[in-house]
Amino acid sequence: MPERLGPPLDMPLFDRVALIGLGLIGSSIARAVKHLNLAGTLVAVDRSEEVVTRVRELAIADEATTDFVAGVRDADLVILCVPVGVCGTVAEAMKPGLKPGSIVSDVGSVKASVIAQVQPHLPDGVHFVPAHPVAGTEHSGPDAGFATLFHNRWCILTPPEGEDEEAVERVRAFWTAMGSNVEIMAAQHHDLVLAITSHVPHLIAYNIVGTAADLETVTQGEVIKFSAGGFRDFTRIAASDPTMWRDIFLHNKEAVLEMLGRLNEDIALLARAIRWGEGDKLFDLFTRTRAIRRGIISSGQETAEPDFGRRKDQA
Amino acid sequence: MPERLGPPLDMPLFDRVALIGLGLIGSSIARAVKHLNLAGTLVAVDRSEEVVTRVRELAIADEATTDFVAGVRDADLVILCVPVGVCGTVAEAMKPGLKPGSIVSDVGSVKASVIAQVQPHLPDGVHFVPAHPVAGTEHSGPDAGFATLFHNRWCILTPPEGEDEEAVERVRAFWTAMGSNVEIMAAQHHDLVLAITSHVPHLIAYNIVGTAADLETVTQGEVIKFSAGGFRDFTRIAASDPTMWRDIFLHNKEAVLEMLGRLNEDIALLARAIRWGEGDKLFDLFTRTRAIRRGIISSGQETAEPDFGRRKDQA
Repeated sequence: MPERLGPPLDMPLFDRVALIGLGLIGSSIARAVKHLNLAGTLVAVDRSEEVVTRVRELAIADEATTDFVAGVRDADLVILCVPVGVCGTVAEAMKPGLKPGSIVSDVGSVKASVIAQVQPHLPDGVHFVPAHPVAGTEHSGPDAGFATLFHNRWCILTPPEGEDEEAVERVRAFWTAMGSNVEIMAAQHHDLVLAITSHVPHLIAYNIVGTAADLETVTQGEVIKFSAGGFRDFTRIAASDPTMWRDIFLHNKEAVLEMLGRLNEDIALLARAIRWGEGDKLFDLFTRTRAIRRGIISSGQETAEPDFGRRKDQA
Repeated sequence: MPERLGPPLDMPLFDRVALIGLGLIGSSIARAVKHLNLAGTLVAVDRSEEVVTRVRELAIADEATTDFVAGVRDADLVILCVPVGVCGTVAEAMKPGLKPGSIVSDVGSVKASVIAQVQPHLPDGVHFVPAHPVAGTEHSGPDAGFATLFHNRWCILTPPEGEDEEAVERVRAFWTAMGSNVEIMAAQHHDLVLAITSHVPHLIAYNIVGTAADLETVTQGEVIKFSAGGFRDFTRIAASDPTMWRDIFLHNKEAVLEMLGRLNEDIALLARAIRWGEGDKLFDLFTRTRAIRRGIISSGQETAEPDFGRRKDQA
């Protein structure tokens, strides 16, 4: 499966890496780190005994523990792979174990809030290079991860101003080794970009699936049965991890509400065009949106195969 | 590719079948009809010379013409595969060629309007069995079709009350032969069900993609670059045929506006929950929507593979 990952490095990038939280993202990083030999020793830290046990069974880390302080001790790189709402708590909990000169990073989908939560807990001499790999699936937990998840995907780094250049470059090298294309961005701008490319689409998908379940005139069975017409694609997005997404909306509140306001204005205009039978306005918009799709395909973020390359005999 | 279609029939279901409009749906039917031997003779009718030429090159019909009257002459089954907005015009144009006892059908995504448009033009003794195969991709044109498009998909028939039973059964047999599961429904109810499962999701997708293109704070390049977080799935839907979709919205106006109103109420509640930091409300909704996704997967309308089974090395 990891056929498109490169060969293992001769020398690990870090002596000791600790991952906190072994869900979809954390366990995908773990698999990639082991496959690519990015760490001399890889430590998995999770507050859940169950997850720690599963990580041992899957053998995707060298050590696994529920003890945050022991888990990060002597680590050169510590990556928080937890919902953005608990980043501050986790940072506080692990603080006593952090080694001077080490790098702390994360994988949160919101950056300004994570920086505000984590930075106050980091001792002097510990570097902070927040990261957001723009990759995922609708599945959760340590079994859902896979080593190629980040391959050919963007990873956005949002280092606070004045952060140590070398620390930033080491984190960049880590993600590049896993196949990601790394981009540096200001945290505030990241949150705005992701609000429109990810957060609001998720909110809309959750909303339409929820509304459909509550209709009186159409049964839930009918919605499920005839979902192939478009609705089905929304349900995939709306099956994503509830805790992760609750935290994203609560921690990127302003940007999400701002983008949602824009959408509402535009949908009001569309509704009016439908009501008044203004076919030209609809046609113009629908033609314009095709061009954006072509941009995404030609940028390599998607395949042109119908239905995301779902096999035709299943389509 | 048509490995999951059955073997060709020994005896065709109809002596002569005419398809009007050889886009994605029409050309998929043509390929399935030829593969399965559903028609003694298959006639392709399209107003576009270019399409007729392409159909001949592709050899997906026995005859091809731009002449509607000649095209439907002596046909036992005539299927309109044109945008719903022109069904009335097409019915009027082909009327002189229709054979007594023949069956007229269509594939439109809206049913009440198509019935209202077509029925007045049908001579006595011509049966009318409207149909809607709930299947498609975001691609258009005679090259986009494939014979297995309808396999394991629903096809909804909405025969007007009192329509000849045998005609309905013959159309049912036609779609069953192509691998569809056939459901009979009242036209009005069909339009309501499809408004929520297909039409409104498309409208929302068109809207969000359009809004994203017009933002001042985020560039279109950034939207395309970081689309993998969820937005990408919307762009696929928003790449569907503009003419077809313009007509759907104009011809299913009431149901679409009604469903859109419901969505707007619900999104206002969600926005308020975000503004007030009511995480529990968000979490409850996000948990509930997962169950609907599971229903769709267990009903066989979708695979549980991440990202619609997009290959992991592409994901």
